[in-house]
Amino acid sequence: MKVTLERNHLLKSLGHVHRVVERRTTYPILSNVLINAHDGQLELRATDLDIEITESVPAMVGVAGTTTVPAHTLYEIVRKLSDGAEVNLETDGTNEQMTITSGRSNFNLTCLAPDGFPDLKSGDFSHKFTLKAGALKNLIDCTQFAISTEETRYYLNGIFFHTMSDDSGVILRAVATDGHRLARAETAAPQGSEGMPSIIVPRKTVAEVQKLLGDDDQDVVIELSDSKIRFELGGVVLLSKLIEGTYPNYEGVIPKDNDKRLAVDRNALKQAVDRVSTIASDRGGKAVKLGLSEGLLELSVTNPDHGTAREELPIEFEHEGFEIGFNARYLLDIIEQVHSEQAIFMFSDSGSPTIVLSEDESDRALYILMPMRV
Amino acid sequence: MKVTLERNHLLKSLGHVHRVVERRTTYPILSNVLINAHDGQLELRATDLDIEITESVPAMVGVAGTTTVPAHTLYEIVRKLSDGAEVNLETDGTNEQMTITSGRSNFNLTCLAPDGFPDLKSGDFSHKFTLKAGALKNLIDCTQFAISTEETRYYLNGIFFHTMSDDSGVILRAVATDGHRLARAETAAPQGSEGMPSIIVPRKTVAEVQKLLGDDDQDVVIELSDSKIRFELGGVVLLSKLIEGTYPNYEGVIPKDNDKRLAVDRNALKQAVDRVSTIASDRGGKAVKLGLSEGLLELSVTNPDHGTAREELPIEFEHEGFEIGFNARYLLDIIEQVHSEQAIFMFSDSGSPTIVLSEDESDRALYILMPMRV
Repeated sequence: MKVTLERNHLLKSLGHVHRVVERRTTYPILSNVLINAHDGQLELRATDLDIEITESVPAMVGVAGTTTVPAHTLYEIVRKLSDGAEVNLETDGTNEQMTITSGRSNFNLTCLAPDGFPDLKSGDFSHKFTLKAGALKNLIDCTQFAISTEETRYYLNGIFFHTMSDDSGVILRAVATDGHRLARAETAAPQGSEGMPSIIVPRKTVAEVQKLLGDDDQDVVIELSDSKIRFELGGVVLLSKLIEGTYPNYEGVIPKDNDKRLAVDRNALKQAVDRVSTIASDRGGKAVKLGLSEGLLELSVTNPDHGTAREELPIEFEHEGFEIGFNARYLLDIIEQVHSEQAIFMFSDSGSPTIVLSEDESDRALYILMPMRV
Repeated sequence: MKVTLERNHLLKSLGHVHRVVERRTTYPILSNVLINAHDGQLELRATDLDIEITESVPAMVGVAGTTTVPAHTLYEIVRKLSDGAEVNLETDGTNEQMTITSGRSNFNLTCLAPDGFPDLKSGDFSHKFTLKAGALKNLIDCTQFAISTEETRYYLNGIFFHTMSDDSGVILRAVATDGHRLARAETAAPQGSEGMPSIIVPRKTVAEVQKLLGDDDQDVVIELSDSKIRFELGGVVLLSKLIEGTYPNYEGVIPKDNDKRLAVDRNALKQAVDRVSTIASDRGGKAVKLGLSEGLLELSVTNPDHGTAREELPIEFEHEGFEIGFNARYLLDIIEQVHSEQAIFMFSDSGSPTIVLSEDESDRALYILMPMRV
C-alpha cells in the first residue's frame, strides 16, 4: 500500500471511526482501524463487534492495499500533524509495518493482518427509508436521557423505535425508560418505514449517531432488519447490532386520566429546582417537594444534615392543592427537553405518575415522571 | 446576626475562601465557613488547618454576630442566585439556623457554634515586604510544575524561597525539584526581604495564591516567620503554615561545566516532542531520544508494542554529535516555561544533567533535567 492524502481529510474521518474503538480490548485487532487503499480513496473502518463505522477519504493511491494499525495511536499522530499538511502512508513488503510520513515527521506503526479484522455482516435489510438529520436528532435528544443503564434489564438499554397509526397518519415513535421516567417522541413516519420491525437501538449506537449528525437538513438513509440497523450520512456508514429482547408495553404506564393541569415558566422552574436541590443530600436521592395551590407552586427540600430550602413560583393551576415529590435530577432532565416558554404538567395525585409536556403541541414529545415519597 | 449584601460581592469572596475547604473532613466544623458581621462588613473565613483564607465584603449590618455554615453549600446557593440580586442572612435566636433569603428563595442552613472554629494563629512575623503580583506569578509559574508529589520526601512538596546576593545585588529565589528535574527562578529582592528565613511554601498554598493573583501590577504584601507566611492581596488574606524541614542543597546539583550549547526553535521543538511521544508507552516513562549532530536534531521514540517515531529539526549546534534521552513529559513541562523564541540547552554528556534556559537572559529562570537511559 502506498497512498498520499490531505491531513485534514484523514483527521476528519479517523475522528469519526476511531471513537467506536474501545480503549481496552481482549483481541488486539479490535484496537486497530482497517485501512484499505483502492480506486482513488482510502477506506477506514473500525468496530467494537457491536458497531462498525466505515468512511472513505479521497486519496492518491500509488499502490493499492489493505492493513490494520492501532486506531487511537494513528488518530493522535494525525491530530498532531500540521493543519493542511500532506500525509503519506506506506506499508513495507512484508506488510508488518506501516510508515507515516509528513514533512519532517516519520512514524512506523506495527500492523496486524487485515484478514483477522472482524466483519459485522449486515445481512438482508427488510426496510429502507430516509429521515432528515434534524428529525432524527429530535427523536434522540428527547429520549436519550431516559435510557436505563441497569444491565439486568438489558432490553431497556436503548431507544425503542416503532411505527404505528394515529389520527395524524402513520408515525415513527422513539421511546426510552428506566422505570423511573419515560420519554416518548414521534415524527411522521418516512416513506418505507411503515410496517418495519419494532427495534431497540443500543445506547452506544445512539450516542455515535448523534455525534455524526450534521445540519438539520442532511439526509440520513436508514436500513434495518430485526437484528441490524445501518445509518448512512454524509459519507459515513454506521452499522449496528440491535438489542434482542421485547420492549415492555410502555403505553400501559402512560396515565390516561391526569386532569390537573399546571402551567409554569420553564426557565424559572429550572432555576428554582436547581437552587433548592443544592441542599438535598445525594443519599436521599435529591428529592424535591412540589406544593401546589391555586396560582402558587412552593418547591422545598429538607435535608436533616444540612437544612432546608424553599422557593415560590407563580403558576397557572386551578385545582385543589396537594403535594408531590420528585427526584430533582430527573425533573431537571425533563425540563431541559421542554423547549417552549411554559412547561405543562398533568397530575393525577401525589402517588401517581405525572405527565410533562411542551406548551407547543407540535413538539409531539411526552414525558412521564414517577413520584417519590417526600 | 442580620445582614444584607449584594449577591455578586458575596459570591466573589465566597469563591476565594471556600476553595480551601476540603470536601471530606473529619471535623464537621472544618466543612464550614466562619461568617462574622460587624461594622458595615461581613468577614468570611475558611481553613483546612494548614491554610486560612479571610476576606471581608461590604454589607449592611442590622444585627452584628458570628456563626459558621457549610462552606460549599453556601457557595453553591449564592452561585445559583440571580446576578445582581440582594441577599439577606439572618440567624435565629438560638444561633442554630441561618436563613438566607433572596427574592422568592429561602434557605435554612444548620449552623455550628463559631467558638469551635479553629484559629491558625499567625504568631510574630520577622519580615514584611511587598512584591508585584506579576513578579510573584512568574516565580510560581516557573517552578510550580517541578514540585514533588512524593510524600516521603515531604520537604520537596513545596517551593523553596530564599534570598541571597549575587553580582546583581540581593535576589529572591524560588526553587522546586522532584529529583528528576529542578526549576529555579529569581527576582530582585524586595525591600524588607533581605535576611528572611529560607522557607518552603506548601504546594496547596502556592496553588491558592496563584488563583488569587490579579493584574501584574497589583501589590502583594507578604509577611513571614520561620513557621508561617501571610499574603495580603486585593482585600484577601491568606495565612499558611510552612513546611518544616531542610531543603536540600540544590546548588550542588546545578552543573557548572556544561559547555555544549544547543539553540532550537521553542515551538517547533514542543510540537515535535509532542508528536513523537504519541508512540511512547506509559510503562516506559514516555522516553524520547535526542540525537544531536551539527545543525540537526533527531527526535525519536521506540515502543516495542507500537512502533517507532522519528522527527528532524534544524538547530544551532557546533559540537561532536551524541545521543541523550529524556522523559517527554518533563521535557515538555520545561519547554512550556521557556517564553523566548529559541530554547537554549547546555549539555555535558549523555549521562549528566542538562541545563535549559530562555534565550532572553532577563528571564532569569533555569531548569535542570536529568537524562533517562534510552
